[in-house]
Amino acid sequence: MTATVDVNSDLAEGFGRWTFGTDDDLLGIVSSANIACGFHAGDPGTIRHAVEVAVAHDVTIGAHVGYPDLQGFGRRRMDMAPQELTDAVIYQIGALSGIARVAGTEVRYVKPHGALYNTVVESTAQARAVVTAIVEIDPSLSVMGLPSSRLLTLAADAGLRTIDEAFVDRAYLPDGSLAPRSMDGAVLHDVDAIVARVVRMVTEGVVEAIDGSVLSLRPDSYCIHGDSPGAVAMGRRLKESLVERGYQLAHPASVPA
Amino acid sequence: MTATVDVNSDLAEGFGRWTFGTDDDLLGIVSSANIACGFHAGDPGTIRHAVEVAVAHDVTIGAHVGYPDLQGFGRRRMDMAPQELTDAVIYQIGALSGIARVAGTEVRYVKPHGALYNTVVESTAQARAVVTAIVEIDPSLSVMGLPSSRLLTLAADAGLRTIDEAFVDRAYLPDGSLAPRSMDGAVLHDVDAIVARVVRMVTEGVVEAIDGSVLSLRPDSYCIHGDSPGAVAMGRRLKESLVERGYQLAHPASVPA
Amino acid sequence: MTATVDVNSDLAEGFGRWTFGTDDDLLGIVSSANIACGFHAGDPGTIRHAVEVAVAHDVTIGAHVGYPDLQGFGRRRMDMAPQELTDAVIYQIGALSGIARVAGTEVRYVKPHGALYNTVVESTAQARAVVTAIVEIDPSLSVMGLPSSRLLTLAADAGLRTIDEAFVDRAYLPDGSLAPRSMDGAVLHDVDAIVARVVRMVTEGVVEAIDGSVLSLRPDSYCIHGDSPGAVAMGRRLKESLVERGYQLAHPASVPA
Amino acid sequence: MTATVDVNSDLAEGFGRWTFGTDDDLLGIVSSANIACGFHAGDPGTIRHAVEVAVAHDVTIGAHVGYPDLQGFGRRRMDMAPQELTDAVIYQIGALSGIARVAGTEVRYVKPHGALYNTVVESTAQARAVVTAIVEIDPSLSVMGLPSSRLLTLAADAGLRTIDEAFVDRAYLPDGSLAPRSMDGAVLHDVDAIVARVVRMVTEGVVEAIDGSVLSLRPDSYCIHGDSPGAVAMGRRLKESLVERGYQLAHPASVPA
Repeated sequence: MTATVDVNSDLAEGFGRWTFGTDDDLLGIVSSANIACGFHAGDPGTIRHAVEVAVAHDVTIGAHVGYPDLQGFGRRRMDMAPQELTDAVIYQIGALSGIARVAGTEVRYVKPHGALYNTVVESTAQARAVVTAIVEIDPSLSVMGLPSSRLLTLAADAGLRTIDEAFVDRAYLPDGSLAPRSMDGAVLHDVDAIVARVVRMVTEGVVEAIDGSVLSLRPDSYCIHGDSPGAVAMGRRLKESLVERGYQLAHPASVPA
Repeated sequence: MTATVDVNSDLAEGFGRWTFGTDDDLLGIVSSANIACGFHAGDPGTIRHAVEVAVAHDVTIGAHVGYPDLQGFGRRRMDMAPQELTDAVIYQIGALSGIARVAGTEVRYVKPHGALYNTVVESTAQARAVVTAIVEIDPSLSVMGLPSSRLLTLAADAGLRTIDEAFVDRAYLPDGSLAPRSMDGAVLHDVDAIVARVVRMVTEGVVEAIDGSVLSLRPDSYCIHGDSPGAVAMGRRLKESLVERGYQLAHPASVPA
Repeated sequence: MTATVDVNSDLAEGFGRWTFGTDDDLLGIVSSANIACGFHAGDPGTIRHAVEVAVAHDVTIGAHVGYPDLQGFGRRRMDMAPQELTDAVIYQIGALSGIARVAGTEVRYVKPHGALYNTVVESTAQARAVVTAIVEIDPSLSVMGLPSSRLLTLAADAGLRTIDEAFVDRAYLPDGSLAPRSMDGAVLHDVDAIVARVVRMVTEGVVEAIDGSVLSLRPDSYCIHGDSPGAVAMGRRLKESLVERGYQLAHPASVPA
Repeated sequence: MTATVDVNSDLAEGFGRWTFGTDDDLLGIVSSANIACGFHAGDPGTIRHAVEVAVAHDVTIGAHVGYPDLQGFGRRRMDMAPQELTDAVIYQIGALSGIARVAGTEVRYVKPHGALYNTVVESTAQARAVVTAIVEIDPSLSVMGLPSSRLLTLAADAGLRTIDEAFVDRAYLPDGSLAPRSMDGAVLHDVDAIVARVVRMVTEGVVEAIDGSVLSLRPDSYCIHGDSPGAVAMGRRLKESLVERGYQLAHPASVPA
């Protein structure tokens, strides 16, 4: 039996005429595609294209749900009431599911985007609103998010499958939380270092924290930021390194537990 | 066996704080609810509420798909490319289907809204784009529209079930087309006259045209405009008149052919 | 010389087909019109109509600036970066100024709307962003807001004229702050009580707090909520009561200091 | 006295996180900047940045007004009623004027964008709506558009200054109209050919049409499409070629007639 690793990326993040231009390349690399659903990014045509390319590459798709804020790209926290947020998440999952159906696939997981991703790390109200949406529309959907976040804790409590996510280019504090972006060294830029670090997490289950101490960490999925310069080249290198070591890229829920 | 008549209305046409305030009342009257899907009107919360009330009243729901134009309420023709329009229709049907699933029902038909409704009467390109969307996402969906429109012709050609719609308050020309709104008498306001006219269509299969001539006309569904003043009172009167005559209100596709 | 009182209301809060329907009536009552600028409400046609009616009634107009959130009607706090907020406020003031110019008037003051109104009571960052926008575009504009808010404090520090606002239907705590809506009696509904209370503030400079104690309070402007049922009737009664007592309704900045 | 040539480009066409990335470079080349106003593109921050860079380079700014259609980038014709369109144009000019004021400049001209640009070539109703907006808000604004279009004809009739525009990379038919994009050779890609052609128009007042015949053509402004690959390099070459021949780049209205 081949061991598997999941690599995910945020995709379909264009809108109409605007695009980041890397969707097609990244879909040749990743095993899981977080597809924007039209609220923070992603018009119907952009979404459909990404989903069709995902199908062609046998990539699992997830709903990358966000705040209704195109101008802010979903990166500005919004104080949505829980019911509003639940309904907004259901709407987005439904819309993506319709397009997935046309493309011959289906949505398998949900990942909050941007400010919503960060808000549901701490906010019980918003985390519960997202979990409620998923339970209501389809409890077979997995939930991807930050390990130990309110979101994943409440999702697990509700019986949903969870996916612990790590960011390949972000440094960790000794306690296992992400180093804030304002800290020196919080974002890694060196491709070799990034690849070596992921390989170590995959093979040894540890990562070196920002202070040099060694942490246990075995995430279920590794996120490549598609909008970083060099993301495609880095992703290719990462995939090659994993494949050379005998790993296969695959979405976690596609692998029998 | 009870004879049935279908009465439909456009619903969930509010957006956030804005509402026409008649959804709940109309859902106690109609048998088919054309639910706005967020492009010309209808935010997720408004849609969900309307769908839940529809379920409570055993009303069949359809996707009322429109152009992406909140400011114009979908009433301004937009020259969308066919593929753009197809994808926009799929997205809207998908979004509504997600909410329908949560509410314990499903979308059963599609009706274009506003300027799109009028455009697909004549435009082969846009009519085909709508039909393509329906065939791609779910060919068991019926299509509601103007009798003899390009939309219904192409839908039938594609093997879709069609629903010929009449407007209860619009006068007809002798050739069976709608009298243009600019013509005197094109819009009926008298409740008794409207009810009598519908009853005659239902029972005799004819309607008096604007010039007094008598036309054969047996539509599959009758539309009440929810935003007309007095729509609720008129709808109640119409329903009573039909029920008194032994008819039951029901969506056409819910009745075995 | 006639003593004056300023009564303001939030107007042009429709969007396209949606409207609250009270603009024309309220513009026959108030002396200051807070005009939505298109971000939380107010499309160009709705704005223009309200501004033209304001001009016909000699009503002073202000820019009612909000978060870019039509779906939430500007009532959801958004974590906009200060520069983003400054630019958004400038854009809105500019847009309204263009329409005002066409209607033969000009924007005289700025009032934040909804969640922005509440945020700038406490948030120095967002309050400063609004003040910066006003200083940059036109320092002759006054600023309307909650007395003692960060907004008005920073505005005064920046040399801007400020307008302390009271809400005619909101109760006060003994310390002069607004009673939270969740508290019993926080929102007044009785027209006679509302009118009597405003008259007392105007004539005696005091108001009875929610606990029966008496507060000194002499606001520069009194806000009528146009979306309350009965707002128009209440506004008329209030105006009559003030006029009977010899007061004239006028915007503060239109009166020589 | 130095002879002048005007070169313009469409700028501020990003939205929030999305950008074409060429604004700063193009603003070092052109003499006139058509600034998006938020309806088809251009959020407040993007607009402000472009206007500030324009000021730094002494570039004249114009309002690039469009249909309210971010998803379609203003490239889909919308059947807006004349009054709606007039109000939308006023709103956009006003918003840009507010930002211009803050940046220490002012809007000097108006150019319709995308589908609106094309629609006002033929549509009297929409062309008149745009002209009405300009006359109402500021009749000192010039109007840039296609030579002999309804827009420029009606603008001239209304006493507005007009600016005949040519596209540097588009071929002409023998009758002086633009070769449709579907025709072979309709869009020029060779930088040398493009530059030579503009130089010939500027120096001799003629251009070779697509069939080899020679046309008289002396436009008031030459448009560089900023979203073409190589636009920046081409623009620099064009500017150098003109400067070498003793021309200075300047907006027409900035030069005494």
